[in-house]
Amino acid sequence: MKSITLFLLILILSFESFAQEKTRRKWLTYYEQKKSTFESLPNDEDEIIFLGNSITEGCEWNELFDDDRIKNRGISADVAEGIFLRLDEVTESKPLKIFLMIGINDLAFGYSIDEILQFYNKILNKIKEDSPKTKTYIQSVLPINESFGKFSAYDTLSNVIIKLNLKLEKLAQDQSLEFINLHESFLLNNRLNPKYTNDGLHLTGKGYLLWKRLIEQYIAE
Amino acid sequence: MKSITLFLLILILSFESFAQEKTRRKWLTYYEQKKSTFESLPNDEDEIIFLGNSITEGCEWNELFDDDRIKNRGISADVAEGIFLRLDEVTESKPLKIFLMIGINDLAFGYSIDEILQFYNKILNKIKEDSPKTKTYIQSVLPINESFGKFSAYDTLSNVIIKLNLKLEKLAQDQSLEFINLHESFLLNNRLNPKYTNDGLHLTGKGYLLWKRLIEQYIAE
Repeated sequence: MKSITLFLLILILSFESFAQEKTRRKWLTYYEQKKSTFESLPNDEDEIIFLGNSITEGCEWNELFDDDRIKNRGISADVAEGIFLRLDEVTESKPLKIFLMIGINDLAFGYSIDEILQFYNKILNKIKEDSPKTKTYIQSVLPINESFGKFSAYDTLSNVIIKLNLKLEKLAQDQSLEFINLHESFLLNNRLNPKYTNDGLHLTGKGYLLWKRLIEQYIAE
Repeated sequence: MKSITLFLLILILSFESFAQEKTRRKWLTYYEQKKSTFESLPNDEDEIIFLGNSITEGCEWNELFDDDRIKNRGISADVAEGIFLRLDEVTESKPLKIFLMIGINDLAFGYSIDEILQFYNKILNKIKEDSPKTKTYIQSVLPINESFGKFSAYDTLSNVIIKLNLKLEKLAQDQSLEFINLHESFLLNNRLNPKYTNDGLHLTGKGYLLWKRLIEQYIAE
Protein backbone atom coordinates (compact mmCIF):
# COMPACT_ATOMS: atom_id res chain seq x y z
CA MET A 1 0.00 0.00 0.00
CA LYS A 2 2.94 2.32 0.76
CA SER A 3 4.36 1.91 -2.73
CA ILE A 4 0.99 2.81 -4.25
CA THR A 5 0.80 5.95 -2.12
CA LEU A 6 4.33 6.87 -3.20
CA PHE A 7 3.47 6.19 -6.83
CA LEU A 8 0.37 8.39 -6.59
CA LEU A 9 2.37 11.15 -4.93
CA ILE A 10 4.98 11.06 -7.71
CA LEU A 11 2.19 11.07 -10.29
CA ILE A 12 0.55 14.12 -8.72
CA LEU A 13 3.86 15.98 -8.38
CA SER A 14 4.68 15.17 -12.01
CA PHE A 15 1.34 16.65 -13.09
CA GLU A 16 2.10 19.75 -11.00
CA SER A 17 5.66 20.17 -12.32
CA PHE A 18 4.47 19.47 -15.88
CA ALA A 19 1.80 22.15 -15.46
CA GLN A 20 4.32 24.70 -14.13
CA GLU A 21 6.76 24.02 -16.96
CA LYS A 22 3.88 24.34 -19.46
CA THR A 23 2.90 27.70 -17.91
CA ARG A 24 6.48 28.98 -18.12
CA ARG A 25 6.87 27.94 -21.75
CA LYS A 26 3.50 29.43 -22.64
CA TRP A 27 4.59 32.71 -21.07
CA LEU A 28 7.89 32.79 -23.01
CA THR A 29 6.02 32.08 -26.23
CA TYR A 30 3.54 34.87 -25.52
CA TYR A 31 6.33 37.26 -24.48
CA GLU A 32 8.03 36.67 -27.84
CA GLN A 33 4.76 37.23 -29.75
CA LYS A 34 4.15 40.56 -28.03
CA LYS A 35 7.79 41.71 -28.12
CA SER A 36 8.09 41.03 -31.85
CA THR A 37 4.77 42.78 -32.46
CA PHE A 38 5.85 45.87 -30.49
CA GLU A 39 9.07 45.90 -32.54
CA SER A 40 7.01 45.90 -35.74
CA LEU A 41 5.12 49.06 -34.81
CA PRO A 42 6.27 52.49 -35.97
CA ASN A 43 7.79 54.92 -33.47
CA ASP A 44 5.99 58.14 -32.71
CA GLU A 45 6.90 61.49 -31.18
CA ASP A 46 6.16 62.25 -27.53
CA GLU A 47 5.06 58.73 -26.70
CA ILE A 48 3.64 58.00 -23.26
CA ILE A 49 4.42 54.36 -22.52
CA PHE A 50 2.41 52.19 -20.15
CA LEU A 51 4.91 49.50 -19.24
CA GLY A 52 4.07 46.42 -17.23
CA ASN A 53 2.37 43.02 -17.04
CA SER A 54 -1.22 41.80 -17.61
CA ILE A 55 -2.65 44.51 -15.37
CA THR A 56 -1.21 47.15 -17.69
CA GLU A 57 -2.01 45.10 -20.79
CA GLY A 58 -5.71 44.84 -19.89
CA CYS A 59 -6.73 48.39 -20.81
CA GLU A 60 -6.90 50.46 -23.99
CA TRP A 61 -5.11 53.39 -22.34
CA ASN A 62 -5.13 55.66 -25.39
CA GLU A 63 -8.92 55.33 -25.50
CA LEU A 64 -9.35 55.69 -21.74
CA PHE A 65 -7.49 59.02 -21.77
CA ASP A 66 -8.51 59.95 -25.33
CA ASP A 67 -4.80 60.58 -25.91
CA ASP A 68 -3.07 59.02 -28.88
CA ARG A 69 0.40 59.58 -27.51
CA ILE A 70 -0.29 56.71 -25.10
CA LYS A 71 1.02 53.24 -26.08
CA ASN A 72 0.28 49.99 -24.25
CA ARG A 73 3.42 47.97 -23.60
CA GLY A 74 2.01 45.49 -21.11
CA ILE A 75 2.76 41.78 -21.48
CA SER A 76 0.77 39.28 -19.46
CA ALA A 77 2.87 37.48 -16.81
CA ASP A 78 5.87 39.76 -17.32
CA VAL A 79 8.43 40.42 -14.59
CA ALA A 80 11.03 43.16 -14.00
CA GLU A 81 13.68 41.12 -15.82
CA GLY A 82 11.33 40.75 -18.80
CA ILE A 83 10.81 44.53 -18.88
CA PHE A 84 14.57 45.09 -18.83
CA LEU A 85 15.10 42.66 -21.71
CA ARG A 86 12.66 44.53 -23.98
CA LEU A 87 13.55 48.06 -23.04
CA ASP A 88 15.29 48.89 -26.34
CA GLU A 89 11.92 48.87 -28.10
CA VAL A 90 10.62 51.34 -25.50
CA THR A 91 13.52 53.80 -25.35
CA GLU A 92 14.15 53.78 -29.10
CA SER A 93 11.45 56.41 -29.67
CA LYS A 94 12.79 58.60 -26.79
CA PRO A 95 9.37 58.66 -25.12
CA LEU A 96 8.10 61.66 -23.21
CA LYS A 97 6.95 59.60 -20.21
CA ILE A 98 6.94 56.02 -18.95
CA PHE A 99 4.38 54.75 -16.43
CA LEU A 100 5.93 51.60 -14.95
CA MET A 101 4.14 48.98 -12.87
CA ILE A 102 5.89 45.64 -12.34
CA GLY A 103 6.63 43.21 -9.53
CA ILE A 104 3.56 41.17 -8.59
CA ASN A 105 4.47 38.21 -10.81
CA ASP A 106 8.09 38.42 -9.65
CA LEU A 107 6.88 37.92 -6.07
CA ALA A 108 4.61 35.05 -7.08
CA PHE A 109 7.46 33.38 -8.99
CA GLY A 110 9.63 33.56 -5.85
CA TYR A 111 11.96 36.48 -6.56
CA SER A 112 13.08 38.32 -3.41
CA ILE A 113 12.43 42.05 -2.99
CA ASP A 114 16.18 42.66 -3.34
CA GLU A 115 16.29 40.81 -6.63
CA ILE A 116 13.31 42.79 -7.91
CA LEU A 117 14.98 46.05 -6.87
CA GLN A 118 18.14 45.07 -8.71
CA PHE A 119 16.12 44.77 -11.92
CA TYR A 120 14.36 48.08 -11.21
CA ASN A 121 17.78 49.70 -10.93
CA LYS A 122 18.87 48.15 -14.22
CA ILE A 123 15.65 49.38 -15.86
CA LEU A 124 15.96 52.93 -14.52
CA ASN A 125 19.66 53.17 -15.40
CA LYS A 126 19.04 52.01 -18.93
CA ILE A 127 16.20 54.49 -19.45
CA LYS A 128 18.44 57.29 -18.13
CA GLU A 129 21.27 56.27 -20.45
CA ASP A 130 19.26 55.62 -23.61
CA SER A 131 16.67 58.36 -23.27
CA PRO A 132 17.75 60.91 -20.62
CA LYS A 133 14.82 63.27 -21.21
CA THR A 134 12.16 60.60 -20.56
CA LYS A 135 10.25 61.14 -17.31
CA THR A 136 9.63 57.84 -15.53
CA TYR A 137 6.79 57.35 -13.02
CA ILE A 138 7.05 54.39 -10.67
CA GLN A 139 3.59 53.14 -9.83
CA SER A 140 3.11 51.02 -6.72
CA VAL A 141 2.16 47.39 -7.11
CA LEU A 142 -1.62 46.97 -6.59
CA PRO A 143 -3.04 44.95 -3.70
CA ILE A 144 -4.49 41.50 -4.27
CA ASN A 145 -7.54 39.81 -2.76
CA GLU A 146 -6.95 36.17 -1.96
CA SER A 147 -10.60 35.56 -1.01
CA PHE A 148 -11.36 35.00 -4.70
CA GLY A 149 -9.17 31.88 -4.48
CA LYS A 150 -8.16 32.03 -8.14
CA PHE A 151 -4.37 32.37 -8.01
CA SER A 152 -2.87 30.22 -5.28
CA ALA A 153 0.69 31.46 -5.95
CA TYR A 154 -0.42 35.01 -5.09
CA ASP A 155 -2.40 34.23 -1.93
CA THR A 156 0.29 34.97 0.60
CA LEU A 157 1.59 38.15 -0.98
CA SER A 158 -0.44 40.92 0.70
CA ASN A 159 2.24 41.82 3.25
CA VAL A 160 5.23 41.47 0.96
CA ILE A 161 3.51 43.76 -1.58
CA ILE A 162 3.43 46.46 1.11
CA LYS A 163 7.14 45.91 1.80
CA LEU A 164 8.00 46.05 -1.90
CA ASN A 165 6.02 49.27 -2.33
CA LEU A 166 7.90 50.93 0.56
CA LYS A 167 11.18 50.02 -1.14
CA LEU A 168 9.91 51.33 -4.48
CA GLU A 169 8.90 54.62 -2.86
CA LYS A 170 12.42 54.90 -1.39
CA LEU A 171 13.98 54.03 -4.76
CA ALA A 172 11.92 56.74 -6.48
CA GLN A 173 13.00 59.29 -3.86
CA ASP A 174 16.66 58.32 -4.26
CA GLN A 175 16.44 58.76 -8.02
CA SER A 176 14.28 61.91 -7.84
CA LEU A 177 11.45 60.17 -9.66
CA GLU A 178 7.73 60.46 -9.05
CA PHE A 179 6.27 57.57 -7.01
CA ILE A 180 2.53 57.09 -7.54
CA ASN A 181 0.92 55.25 -4.66
CA LEU A 182 -2.07 53.52 -6.25
CA HIS A 183 -2.07 50.72 -3.66
CA GLU A 184 -4.07 52.39 -0.89
CA SER A 185 -6.81 53.72 -3.19
CA PHE A 186 -7.59 50.19 -4.36
CA LEU A 187 -7.91 48.80 -0.82
CA LEU A 188 -10.93 47.72 1.15
CA ASN A 189 -10.22 46.01 4.48
CA ASN A 190 -6.57 45.63 3.50
CA ARG A 191 -7.38 43.71 0.32
CA LEU A 192 -8.00 44.64 -3.33
CA ASN A 193 -11.51 46.10 -3.28
CA PRO A 194 -13.94 43.60 -4.93
CA LYS A 195 -15.53 46.59 -6.64
CA TYR A 196 -12.51 46.74 -8.96
CA THR A 197 -11.77 43.06 -9.67
CA ASN A 198 -13.46 39.77 -10.44
CA ASP A 199 -10.52 37.51 -9.67
CA GLY A 200 -8.58 39.24 -6.90
CA LEU A 201 -5.62 40.12 -9.12
CA HIS A 202 -6.77 41.75 -12.38
CA LEU A 203 -8.99 44.78 -12.88
CA THR A 204 -12.43 45.27 -14.36
CA GLY A 205 -13.56 48.48 -16.06
CA LYS A 206 -14.25 50.24 -12.76
CA GLY A 207 -10.69 49.52 -11.65
CA TYR A 208 -9.25 51.17 -14.75
CA LEU A 209 -11.52 54.20 -14.28
CA LEU A 210 -10.16 54.63 -10.73
CA TRP A 211 -6.58 54.22 -11.98
CA LYS A 212 -7.30 56.92 -14.58
CA ARG A 213 -8.48 59.38 -11.92
CA LEU A 214 -5.35 58.68 -9.84
CA ILE A 215 -2.84 59.40 -12.61
CA GLU A 216 -4.50 61.88 -14.97
CA GLN A 217 -2.64 64.78 -13.36
CA TYR A 218 0.66 63.09 -14.32
CA ILE A 219 -0.49 62.51 -17.90
CA ALA A 220 -1.49 66.17 -18.18
CA GLU A 221 1.55 67.78 -16.51
CA MET B 1 -4.33 -4.66 -10.07
CA LYS B 2 -7.40 -3.92 -12.21
CA SER B 3 -8.91 -1.70 -9.52
CA ILE B 4 -5.68 0.29 -9.26
CA THR B 5 -5.63 0.84 -13.04
CA LEU B 6 -9.26 1.95 -12.88
CA PHE B 7 -8.50 4.25 -9.96
CA LEU B 8 -5.55 5.82 -11.84
CA LEU B 9 -7.70 6.25 -14.93
CA ILE B 10 -10.39 8.04 -12.91
CA LEU B 11 -7.71 10.19 -11.26
CA ILE B 12 -6.23 11.20 -14.64
CA LEU B 13 -9.67 11.92 -16.11
CA SER B 14 -10.54 14.01 -13.04
CA PHE B 15 -7.38 16.04 -13.52
CA GLU B 16 -8.26 16.53 -17.19
CA SER B 17 -11.86 17.55 -16.50
CA PHE B 18 -10.75 19.80 -13.62
CA ALA B 19 -8.23 21.48 -15.94
CA GLN B 20 -10.91 22.03 -18.62
CA GLU B 21 -13.34 23.51 -16.13
CA LYS B 22 -10.57 25.75 -14.78
CA THR B 23 -9.78 26.93 -18.33
CA ARG B 24 -13.45 27.70 -19.02
CA ARG B 25 -13.87 29.66 -15.79
CA LYS B 26 -10.64 31.56 -16.40
CA TRP B 27 -11.92 32.52 -19.84
CA LEU B 28 -15.27 33.77 -18.47
CA THR B 29 -13.46 35.82 -15.83
CA TYR B 30 -11.18 37.32 -18.46
CA TYR B 31 -14.10 37.95 -20.84
CA GLU B 32 -15.86 39.91 -18.11
CA GLN B 33 -12.72 41.96 -17.33
CA LYS B 34 -12.28 42.95 -20.96
CA LYS B 35 -16.01 43.51 -21.64
CA SER B 36 -16.38 45.79 -18.62
CA THR B 37 -13.21 47.67 -19.63
CA PHE B 38 -14.46 48.18 -23.19
CA GLU B 39 -17.74 49.48 -21.74
CA SER B 40 -15.80 52.00 -19.64
CA LEU B 41 -14.12 53.57 -22.68
CA PRO B 42 -15.57 56.64 -24.38
CA ASN B 43 -17.18 56.31 -27.82
CA ASP B 44 -15.61 58.03 -30.77
CA GLU B 45 -16.70 59.07 -34.26
CA ASP B 46 -15.93 56.93 -37.30
CA GLU B 47 -14.54 54.05 -35.27
CA ILE B 48 -12.94 51.13 -37.10
CA ILE B 49 -13.42 48.09 -34.88
CA PHE B 50 -11.17 45.03 -34.93
CA LEU B 51 -13.45 42.38 -33.47
CA GLY B 52 -12.31 38.88 -32.55
CA ASN B 53 -10.34 36.61 -30.24
CA SER B 54 -6.69 36.49 -29.07
CA ILE B 55 -5.40 36.73 -32.64
CA THR B 56 -7.10 40.12 -32.97
CA GLU B 57 -6.26 41.09 -29.39
CA GLY B 58 -2.54 40.53 -29.92
CA CYS B 59 -1.82 43.65 -31.97
CA GLU B 60 -1.90 47.40 -31.37
CA TRP B 61 -3.85 48.01 -34.60
CA ASN B 62 -4.10 51.79 -34.23
CA GLU B 63 -0.31 51.93 -34.04
CA LEU B 64 0.24 49.42 -36.84
CA PHE B 65 -1.87 51.53 -39.22
CA ASP B 66 -1.06 54.86 -37.56
CA ASP B 67 -4.81 55.43 -37.53
CA ASP B 68 -6.52 56.46 -34.31
CA ARG B 69 -9.98 55.57 -35.53
CA ILE B 70 -9.00 51.91 -35.03
CA LYS B 71 -10.07 50.22 -31.78
CA ASN B 72 -9.03 46.74 -30.62
CA ARG B 73 -11.99 44.67 -29.47
CA GLY B 74 -10.33 41.29 -29.34
CA ILE B 75 -10.79 39.03 -26.33
CA SER B 76 -8.56 36.02 -25.89
CA ALA B 77 -10.44 32.69 -26.26
CA ASP B 78 -13.59 34.37 -27.52
CA VAL B 79 -16.11 32.60 -29.76
CA ALA B 80 -18.88 33.80 -32.09
CA GLU B 81 -21.44 33.59 -29.28
CA GLY B 82 -19.15 35.72 -27.08
CA ILE B 83 -18.93 38.33 -29.84
CA PHE B 84 -22.73 38.39 -30.16
CA LEU B 85 -23.16 38.87 -26.41
CA ARG B 86 -20.93 41.97 -26.33
CA LEU B 87 -22.08 43.56 -29.56
CA ASP B 88 -23.96 46.43 -27.89
CA GLU B 89 -20.66 47.98 -26.80
CA VAL B 90 -19.47 47.80 -30.42
CA THR B 91 -22.53 49.11 -32.25
CA GLU B 92 -23.29 51.84 -29.68
CA SER B 93 -20.82 54.22 -31.34
CA LYS B 94 -22.21 53.45 -34.84
CA PRO B 95 -18.76 52.51 -36.13
CA LEU B 96 -17.66 53.20 -39.69
CA LYS B 97 -16.28 49.70 -40.22
CA ILE B 98 -15.95 46.37 -38.43
CA PHE B 99 -13.23 43.84 -39.26
CA LEU B 100 -14.48 40.53 -37.88
CA MET B 101 -12.41 37.37 -37.38
CA ILE B 102 -13.89 34.62 -35.22
CA GLY B 103 -14.36 30.85 -35.29
CA ILE B 104 -11.12 29.03 -34.52
CA ASN B 105 -11.87 28.62 -30.80
CA ASP B 106 -15.45 27.64 -31.61
CA LEU B 107 -14.10 24.74 -33.70
CA ALA B 108 -11.65 23.75 -30.96
CA PHE B 109 -14.45 23.82 -28.36
CA GLY B 110 -16.51 21.47 -30.52
CA TYR B 111 -19.07 23.77 -32.13
CA SER B 112 -20.21 22.58 -35.57
CA ILE B 113 -19.84 24.80 -38.64
CA ASP B 114 -23.64 25.19 -38.74
CA GLU B 115 -23.70 26.39 -35.13
CA ILE B 116 -20.93 28.89 -35.84
CA LEU B 117 -22.80 30.17 -38.90
CA GLN B 118 -25.95 30.65 -36.82
CA PHE B 119 -24.02 32.97 -34.50
CA TYR B 120 -22.49 34.76 -37.49
CA ASN B 121 -26.01 35.40 -38.76
CA LYS B 122 -27.08 36.73 -35.38
CA ILE B 123 -24.02 38.99 -35.28
CA LEU B 124 -24.55 40.35 -38.79
CA ASN B 125 -28.28 40.88 -38.27
CA LYS B 126 -27.70 42.77 -35.05
CA ILE B 127 -25.06 45.02 -36.64
CA LYS B 128 -27.46 45.75 -39.52
CA GLU B 129 -30.30 46.58 -37.11
CA ASP B 130 -28.35 48.63 -34.57
CA SER B 131 -25.94 50.40 -36.91
CA PRO B 132 -27.13 50.07 -40.51
CA LYS B 133 -24.40 52.29 -41.98
CA THR B 134 -21.55 50.22 -40.56
CA LYS B 135 -19.57 48.34 -43.21
CA THR B 136 -18.65 44.85 -41.99
CA TYR B 137 -15.72 42.88 -43.40
CA ILE B 138 -15.65 39.14 -42.78
CA GLN B 139 -12.08 37.94 -42.52
CA SER B 140 -11.34 34.26 -43.09
CA VAL B 141 -10.15 32.19 -40.17
CA LEU B 142 -6.34 31.81 -40.33
CA PRO B 143 -4.67 28.43 -40.82
CA ILE B 144 -2.98 26.64 -37.94
CA ASN B 145 0.24 24.64 -37.79
CA GLU B 146 -0.04 21.55 -35.62
CA SER B 147 3.66 20.72 -35.94
CA PHE B 148 4.34 23.13 -33.06
CA GLY B 149 2.41 20.72 -30.82
CA LYS B 150 1.26 23.45 -28.45
CA PHE B 151 -2.54 23.29 -28.66
CA SER B 152 -3.79 19.73 -28.84
CA ALA B 153 -7.45 20.78 -29.21
CA TYR B 154 -6.59 22.60 -32.46
CA ASP B 155 -4.45 19.90 -34.05
CA THR B 156 -7.09 18.32 -36.22
CA LEU B 157 -8.69 21.52 -37.46
CA SER B 158 -6.82 22.29 -40.70
CA ASN B 159 -9.46 20.80 -43.00
CA VAL B 160 -12.49 22.03 -41.09
CA ILE B 161 -11.04 25.57 -41.14
CA ILE B 162 -11.07 25.41 -44.95
CA LYS B 163 -14.72 24.26 -44.88
CA LEU B 164 -15.68 27.02 -42.46
CA ASN B 165 -13.98 29.64 -44.62
CA LEU B 166 -15.88 28.46 -47.74
CA LYS B 167 -19.14 28.87 -45.81
CA LEU B 168 -18.08 32.31 -44.55
CA GLU B 169 -17.28 33.39 -48.12
CA LYS B 170 -20.75 32.22 -49.20
CA LEU B 171 -22.35 34.02 -46.25
CA ALA B 172 -20.57 37.25 -47.16
CA GLN B 173 -21.75 36.93 -50.78
CA ASP B 174 -25.34 36.31 -49.66
CA GLN B 175 -25.27 39.40 -47.46
CA SER B 176 -23.35 41.56 -49.99
CA LEU B 177 -20.45 41.94 -47.58
CA GLU B 178 -16.74 41.93 -48.34
CA PHE B 179 -15.00 38.63 -47.63
CA ILE B 180 -11.26 38.97 -47.04
CA ASN B 181 -9.41 35.73 -47.65
CA LEU B 182 -6.36 35.97 -45.41
CA HIS B 183 -6.05 32.18 -45.09
CA GLU B 184 -4.10 31.41 -48.25
CA SER B 185 -1.55 34.20 -47.77
CA PHE B 186 -0.55 32.76 -44.39
CA LEU B 187 0.00 29.23 -45.77
CA LEU B 188 3.16 27.28 -46.38
CA ASN B 189 2.69 23.62 -47.33
CA ASN B 190 -0.97 23.82 -46.27
CA ARG B 191 -0.13 24.95 -42.73
CA LEU B 192 0.32 28.32 -40.99
CA ASN B 193 3.71 29.52 -42.23
CA PRO B 194 6.25 29.25 -39.35
CA LYS B 195 7.56 32.64 -40.47
CA TYR B 196 4.47 34.22 -38.92
CA THR B 197 3.99 32.24 -35.70
CA ASN B 198 5.90 30.73 -32.80
CA ASP B 199 3.15 28.42 -31.54
CA GLY B 200 1.19 27.38 -34.62
CA LEU B 201 -1.91 29.41 -33.68
CA HIS B 202 -0.98 32.99 -32.73
CA LEU B 203 0.98 35.55 -34.73
CA THR B 204 4.34 37.22 -34.20
CA GLY B 205 5.18 40.71 -35.46
CA LYS B 206 5.82 39.50 -39.02
CA GLY B 207 2.37 37.94 -39.11
CA TYR B 208 0.70 41.22 -38.20
CA LEU B 209 2.75 43.07 -40.84
CA LEU B 210 1.48 40.63 -43.48
CA TRP B 211 -2.11 41.02 -42.22
CA LYS B 212 -1.68 44.79 -42.51
CA ARG B 213 -0.60 44.54 -46.15
CA LEU B 214 -3.59 42.32 -46.92
CA ILE B 215 -6.24 44.65 -45.52
CA GLU B 216 -4.85 48.18 -45.82
CA GLN B 217 -6.88 48.81 -48.98
CA TYR B 218 -10.06 48.14 -46.97
CA ILE B 219 -9.00 50.49 -44.17
CA ALA B 220 -8.28 53.21 -46.72
CA GLU B 221 -11.37 52.82 -48.94
